[in-house]
Amino acid sequence: MKYKLPNPENLVRKQVRELHEYVPGEQPAIQGLIKLNTNENPYPPSPHVIETIKNAVDSRLRLYPNPTAQKLRERLAEYHNCSPDNIIVGNGSDELLALATRAFVEPLKSVKGSNKSRAVIQYLYPCYSLYPVLADIHGAKRNPVRLEEDFSIPSVQKLKKEKKWDFNAALTYITTPNAPGGRGYSIDELEDLCRNQRGVVILDEAYVDFAEQHAMSLAIKYPHVIVSRTFSKAFSLCFLRVGYFVGNPVLINAMHKVRDSYNVNGIGQIAAIATLDSLQYYRENIEKIKKTRAYLSEKLTELGFKVFPSQTNFIFTKPPLFSAKEWLEKLRERKILVRWFDIPFVNEHLRITIGTMAEAEALYKAAKEILSK
Amino acid sequence: MKYKLPNPENLVRKQVRELHEYVPGEQPAIQGLIKLNTNENPYPPSPHVIETIKNAVDSRLRLYPNPTAQKLRERLAEYHNCSPDNIIVGNGSDELLALATRAFVEPLKSVKGSNKSRAVIQYLYPCYSLYPVLADIHGAKRNPVRLEEDFSIPSVQKLKKEKKWDFNAALTYITTPNAPGGRGYSIDELEDLCRNQRGVVILDEAYVDFAEQHAMSLAIKYPHVIVSRTFSKAFSLCFLRVGYFVGNPVLINAMHKVRDSYNVNGIGQIAAIATLDSLQYYRENIEKIKKTRAYLSEKLTELGFKVFPSQTNFIFTKPPLFSAKEWLEKLRERKILVRWFDIPFVNEHLRITIGTMAEAEALYKAAKEILSK
Repeated sequence: MKYKLPNPENLVRKQVRELHEYVPGEQPAIQGLIKLNTNENPYPPSPHVIETIKNAVDSRLRLYPNPTAQKLRERLAEYHNCSPDNIIVGNGSDELLALATRAFVEPLKSVKGSNKSRAVIQYLYPCYSLYPVLADIHGAKRNPVRLEEDFSIPSVQKLKKEKKWDFNAALTYITTPNAPGGRGYSIDELEDLCRNQRGVVILDEAYVDFAEQHAMSLAIKYPHVIVSRTFSKAFSLCFLRVGYFVGNPVLINAMHKVRDSYNVNGIGQIAAIATLDSLQYYRENIEKIKKTRAYLSEKLTELGFKVFPSQTNFIFTKPPLFSAKEWLEKLRERKILVRWFDIPFVNEHLRITIGTMAEAEALYKAAKEILSK
Repeated sequence: MKYKLPNPENLVRKQVRELHEYVPGEQPAIQGLIKLNTNENPYPPSPHVIETIKNAVDSRLRLYPNPTAQKLRERLAEYHNCSPDNIIVGNGSDELLALATRAFVEPLKSVKGSNKSRAVIQYLYPCYSLYPVLADIHGAKRNPVRLEEDFSIPSVQKLKKEKKWDFNAALTYITTPNAPGGRGYSIDELEDLCRNQRGVVILDEAYVDFAEQHAMSLAIKYPHVIVSRTFSKAFSLCFLRVGYFVGNPVLINAMHKVRDSYNVNGIGQIAAIATLDSLQYYRENIEKIKKTRAYLSEKLTELGFKVFPSQTNFIFTKPPLFSAKEWLEKLRERKILVRWFDIPFVNEHLRITIGTMAEAEALYKAAKEILSK
């Protein structure tokens, strides 16, 4: 029999072949670009963090990092007034958001009739656009439910009445403060939702350091609530990939069991610990970003932009005169990169990262010029 | 109705609750320990790598790393004489070994009668003990088949005759050279197996830089064969977590679709590129390790150890007089840490990483002393 090469298309799972993967914001190599598209912090890590990392670059690189990020978990436990058993560190919070699907959710094809909620991943949208992709990768059933027009969370009463929300869903993601909308939520409204939810709830607080309230207390109080945090936004460490979850030790332990053994690189662990030694530096940066956010919101409003109130390091805005897509291109021509999502309900808007004050001024100037043509 | 807190045990998937997770080798904090338990390279990264990393520790840490490790993939493509489309980089090769299950294998509960091979993860054992854990995490069906006593691969004829091997298995892992046995395999015998296999085959070449042959050509020639490599063993970069797969673009693309967007930290990408600029340095280290391996094998054989021929940076050996577990403890008392696996077929053996010549001498001396008591 003549040997015939296998067709690789047939070797890939059907659900993967059909998957629309998550597309991250562009990381362009163009010089001199004002990059306001991926919600990075405009300020570098603290001098203490930079120095600590440089001093750690030595022969230790040949060794495996601590597999449980032990010291970092101890420091985070102190920071959040809980136990290291409440904490798992990930290769960015993205890794943990994905791990949660594998720890808590059954693939839809493997559950039987009455048990469908065990396969449901649900979220209030617009939200972080990774969630539906994570559901698809895992073969779970997506359950997207609309936020109100102003990005507020529908009341539990309304959710019950409309019957779209699944109070037994295996996993619920809430982006809080919301992305891309920028709206912040109070502990009270989040708690109301959590108390009515019987599956795991992840409060994705990627942007919470720029907000008025955080809901960490709910992760300690409720055994089914997890809070997700990252060192990428307020702490300027995107490059090193460090995020963490805080939650009940039973849930956290389940995630430890299914993660890669050495999932967090050693330099990331060292940098995150040094970050917790420099909190004052970061608090000052956060205040600067909030000031710039207020400035840019005001100036764009003057120009006719509809700017949603933001508790994050970006603003969500509906631009005047031209479509959002046209604005994206016009700003890009002027070397300013912002984010536009080609997704229903948000495709008339732009998401603009808060950079430095100089970058905000440049954006304002560019917008003014575009409108005057 | 009184509010009742959910029981978190009920929120974890049954297959995760029942999982026996992978336990990595100890990373002890004890000073002065000779650490020969996790196959780390005794030599640090090259001075060029160290310097390049130090110079990269600056304000760029606030930015996301390149999401596809583009430059590194280009350099690896040059190195292996293929295209960047043949390559995916991971957060260590562990991440990619796990990703492959999600790209190519169906959970057992979601496949129907005649299609069971789509849910099979198979491997020749003893092997890297992560594979069965990956199968369990994914809910796949494990199919472990024994290697010969001397760690050679059973002939295709024998595999066909014994009918335990599944030639249609969705995914087959082969540790080549073998771990923990240390045996190397020829391209010919691997090719023979691959040609008879209709699912995806991963040749896990973590230790191949210490071997006589590598099988990278098979990943280019056969659309269902993937070669796995790591920067952790020959290239002394465990701490930074960089591994990669080489294979057909269709398979590689499927894995890109299901990975985290920014799965490889930026410092890891930079360090790996700098490593490829320093190959001569690493070749010299590899030669030193091979010499130490020959020395230690000879000396332990003199003492009555049964030492298997090794093409890796460790040796696998059956110690005399005491059980392997007792040897583990006796060596530990003398501040020498080696690896013992409490797994059938290998629990009478020790796996000893090849360190520096001084470490080999210390081990020999300790073994001699233990035997003389």
